[in-house]
Amino acid sequence: MSMAQAVEWTRDALQARIDRAPFNAWLGLELQDWGHGTIALRLRTRPEVLGHAAINALHGGILASILDTACSMAVVTATGESVYTVDIRVDFLRPATAEVYTIQAKVARLGRTLATAGAEVIAEDGQQVACGRAVLQHIAQMPAGRPG
Amino acid sequence: MSMAQAVEWTRDALQARIDRAPFNAWLGLELQDWGHGTIALRLRTRPEVLGHAAINALHGGILASILDTACSMAVVTATGESVYTVDIRVDFLRPATAEVYTIQAKVARLGRTLATAGAEVIAEDGQQVACGRAVLQHIAQMPAGRPG
Amino acid sequence: MSMAQAVEWTRDALQARIDRAPFNAWLGLELQDWGHGTIALRLRTRPEVLGHAAINALHGGILASILDTACSMAVVTATGESVYTVDIRVDFLRPATAEVYTIQAKVARLGRTLATAGAEVIAEDGQQVACGRAVLQHIAQMPAGRPG
Amino acid sequence: MSMAQAVEWTRDALQARIDRAPFNAWLGLELQDWGHGTIALRLRTRPEVLGHAAINALHGGILASILDTACSMAVVTATGESVYTVDIRVDFLRPATAEVYTIQAKVARLGRTLATAGAEVIAEDGQQVACGRAVLQHIAQMPAGRPG
Repeated sequence: MSMAQAVEWTRDALQARIDRAPFNAWLGLELQDWGHGTIALRLRTRPEVLGHAAINALHGGILASILDTACSMAVVTATGESVYTVDIRVDFLRPATAEVYTIQAKVARLGRTLATAGAEVIAEDGQQVACGRAVLQHIAQMPAGRPG
Repeated sequence: MSMAQAVEWTRDALQARIDRAPFNAWLGLELQDWGHGTIALRLRTRPEVLGHAAINALHGGILASILDTACSMAVVTATGESVYTVDIRVDFLRPATAEVYTIQAKVARLGRTLATAGAEVIAEDGQQVACGRAVLQHIAQMPAGRPG
Repeated sequence: MSMAQAVEWTRDALQARIDRAPFNAWLGLELQDWGHGTIALRLRTRPEVLGHAAINALHGGILASILDTACSMAVVTATGESVYTVDIRVDFLRPATAEVYTIQAKVARLGRTLATAGAEVIAEDGQQVACGRAVLQHIAQMPAGRPG
Repeated sequence: MSMAQAVEWTRDALQARIDRAPFNAWLGLELQDWGHGTIALRLRTRPEVLGHAAINALHGGILASILDTACSMAVVTATGESVYTVDIRVDFLRPATAEVYTIQAKVARLGRTLATAGAEVIAEDGQQVACGRAVLQHIAQMPAGRPG
């Protein structure tokens, strides 16, 4: 990954950027760590996000949601720009029956307007429960932190 | 698509099957119509599911959620069995800024244990805002309607 | 799909554009029909492209190749520009054991620099053996027919 | 990845298994290394596999072919069984203009009948030019080495 210039983020500004999406705020996605083109988020389950009441597993769409957000935010750490997901693939590897998850994303390629990023969802026991790969478009906008 | 035997569903039983996933019930996904290997659902947006407060567009993960559910339920109409999504691809085609959406899904191939299904999300104005393709595993369970 | 302006193609020019890729020429991909954002190609199998000698089925990568080419060329019919595939998903639905295949592709969305297209491979008996979905980048170039 | 029992391969037997697909043999895919659920292959370009005569880049379908084969063979190293690709996603990251490539694949999850594997294509200069993710079905067959 190569980029023209670095973008500086504070924890509060990056968490605010995540929460600019009401669904991220509702999910309670919490910023754990970040770098230039990488991010780690944390999700605690809540009863409404289950896909099956009997086995207490996350709905696949929730896994897709947090993988999508993590891929987008990994691009945001590097560009600060507006980011739109063009497409995403999600592989569901194991039942997501944990209480808390870490989501790690990394930009694999950052082009002038397009980026490709990968992410994985890790349960408390260290098991990978899902992974994803997304293509995203990033577009210059007003200064970071102001809605584009 | 070819299947050994048909499964009969009533509207109430199929809606109950959708709502067995707490997240589907929270979203308020409403059964519109179904056939043997096809289904149509309806979603009305709510403030919490937006991906961007300023432009009022659905979060990509919500589009993934309803495409995933539609693909799964299209298989359920045909088999009545437990269905698990193995992987899904979602293409985001246009900003999802409508109030109400129709989601249509169709099984493209139904094998002995695997199925491939496609789905699309259509806004009120008839525009396709997203489409998806999923591979799903279907596994025999107790009689339809009883949680597997 | 909406586009600023139409591009006119002759059969010879469009077939030459397909054959500009040596691998397409080696495969013998033959233009059947086209429209504005759509294309139909024809492939006759040859012994080298099989994935399994015993069952005489096409290699999955050959199905991916013709789906990729069809999606790219569907964009080319509309823009005439250079087209690069960003990512593709291929679903393998049935064994590809026919002698001759038709590949049909259609642009689902044509943006300013990005396009999304879908395609399917149909065997002689009318069965769909594979389908794909691709995101492509299209970039202005020299007049159509001249390598960009 | 967990598996009931290990399968032992010799270099000759595993290379022969690769070459059982005529297209792999035509491409000249060469076994480099393998483990339990992992494999490394090597490809040298040939003029027929280019996607663009002017820039000497591999056709995207060739990248898909070698990623598909690598994912399949990574499963074969572990199971010895017949393996069928159900679906694959390929991300094209950089122009594939090298002379020689290494393809590395690894099984991410091996279930009773399904596997998920990831692979990447690395050029001579160490750059990743493409990556892929596939879902595969593995089915018991006659003893390893005998065509199923």
